[in-house]
Amino acid sequence: MIPEFEVTILGNTSSIPVHGRHHTAQVVRFGQDFLLLDCGEAMQLQARAFKIRVSKINTIFISHLHGDHYLGLVGLLSSYHLAKRTSPLTLFGPQGLDEIITTHFRWSNTKLSYPLTFVQTHDDGLNLLLDTPRYQVYSFPLKHRLPTTGFLIKEKHGLRSMIKEKLQQDNLSFAAIQSLRKGIDYKDENGKKYKVNAYTHPLPPLRSYAYCSDTIYNPDLKPYLENVDLLYHESTFMEDNRERAAVTFHSTAKQAAEIAKISGVKKLLLGHFSSRYTDLELMLGEAKSVFPSSILSEEGQTYAI
Amino acid sequence: MIPEFEVTILGNTSSIPVHGRHHTAQVVRFGQDFLLLDCGEAMQLQARAFKIRVSKINTIFISHLHGDHYLGLVGLLSSYHLAKRTSPLTLFGPQGLDEIITTHFRWSNTKLSYPLTFVQTHDDGLNLLLDTPRYQVYSFPLKHRLPTTGFLIKEKHGLRSMIKEKLQQDNLSFAAIQSLRKGIDYKDENGKKYKVNAYTHPLPPLRSYAYCSDTIYNPDLKPYLENVDLLYHESTFMEDNRERAAVTFHSTAKQAAEIAKISGVKKLLLGHFSSRYTDLELMLGEAKSVFPSSILSEEGQTYAI
Repeated sequence: MIPEFEVTILGNTSSIPVHGRHHTAQVVRFGQDFLLLDCGEAMQLQARAFKIRVSKINTIFISHLHGDHYLGLVGLLSSYHLAKRTSPLTLFGPQGLDEIITTHFRWSNTKLSYPLTFVQTHDDGLNLLLDTPRYQVYSFPLKHRLPTTGFLIKEKHGLRSMIKEKLQQDNLSFAAIQSLRKGIDYKDENGKKYKVNAYTHPLPPLRSYAYCSDTIYNPDLKPYLENVDLLYHESTFMEDNRERAAVTFHSTAKQAAEIAKISGVKKLLLGHFSSRYTDLELMLGEAKSVFPSSILSEEGQTYAI
Repeated sequence: MIPEFEVTILGNTSSIPVHGRHHTAQVVRFGQDFLLLDCGEAMQLQARAFKIRVSKINTIFISHLHGDHYLGLVGLLSSYHLAKRTSPLTLFGPQGLDEIITTHFRWSNTKLSYPLTFVQTHDDGLNLLLDTPRYQVYSFPLKHRLPTTGFLIKEKHGLRSMIKEKLQQDNLSFAAIQSLRKGIDYKDENGKKYKVNAYTHPLPPLRSYAYCSDTIYNPDLKPYLENVDLLYHESTFMEDNRERAAVTFHSTAKQAAEIAKISGVKKLLLGHFSSRYTDLELMLGEAKSVFPSSILSEEGQTYAI
């Protein structure tokens, strides 16, 4: 069975939260695992509105320390404590996030009910943060006004699925099945050979998702983003504010599309929209003129990866 | 003209924000001044929903450092900065709040666009925090699990209004009017006396509002709350959780009503409801059985003081 791999957008606005849009937060589901990417203020309210059970999240990734990307975090950690959470939580984020959190909890005299592990990220290349049987999470550097990382979530192959007819026909041993499912040819005690390709279905293509929260236009991102199925890339501005994008270390929708194009990604998801844009269709048009498979992220929507 | 004196409730839930209720925040308007009492997460979204212009707020009072009373503050201060606010802001709150704020802004490398003055509150009696021509704000101690203060906002008398007919009939000098409006009898150069009571309308009664954010049942509050027009008193629990209220240093609705009763207040506004109560009518009933002028606070509602 292919595990579900999808992302739900909880917030897609930059700076001041208007037009019914909220600060950045998104939940990536891989099978039974729920990962939170950034945690803007009011993330909990958004999760409730969209029926995402925050209790299922066990890993949180914060891209950088601008408020619109993490100011919902202390509230979320507090809610877990109030709900008497006991399951461990791992938090990945830049230097300083641990000091911020411990400062809050020191003054509120809170000793969390669950183990919280902080792992500091570094914006110095591709770094493996999390390795599970079915997927890996990497950080990679983004160019912004603060130390910032994007996150890359890559599926790993699971066990192969057997071709049912061949399985029944040849009455395979348990040891043979185990080996073939792992992708290893098998030889039984009589020397009979069983080829992986003959007994198992071809492996499905591996899926991947890349998240670029806040970044200036940066073609150096290509090696990290190459061929991903879905790329979320910030598009704070339109071309009318191309200079302002550069000054503030943000991107335009067209620049996001250029990154998507040179990286050969399958689909581009736009977000982190400036409050100056009420209607986003023109922005989408600018992206599509460069990269036709561009879509506007919508809060509450889930995108399959 | 009597200045408007009213409070708008932006949030009235305790702990976990459910049932469409939000964390504590309220805006007190006195004439053209807007004061913010506590600032729970998502306060900005609530203000926008209820058409409160946050830019008008120039004084903020934080009662204590439990997250549900202040986790919207750094976001609000950031939004002011992004909106290029220049007008000064004064923040009153307990020890630690300044460290929390400066920790955030140090890591986000933010130098605020406006002067922010932090004034530390102390939970050691009635302390005058703000003295304006028309009102004063005091803090007073609450008993909770952390150092906590309530806030008392008391109207001061403005200038008296003249009795129009008398003014025209006696052709009063400017100096006489100035004196009488200030409430001082006047004698002109010919020795003629003008009595305040004869020339001005009686002063309207002075209004007052008291805010008790989080507190255990505490009859010692009486001297601070005596005869206020409107008392907001937390009522986290109903009588079914009277013991839990004591253990967590909170109050039941009935206890809030008892405080209102012994303090001789005019009206009691209940809030800070536990997420365990969906329907609050039973809670209101418990309060009314002790103090009939009790009402449930509703988010988005404005209550005249």
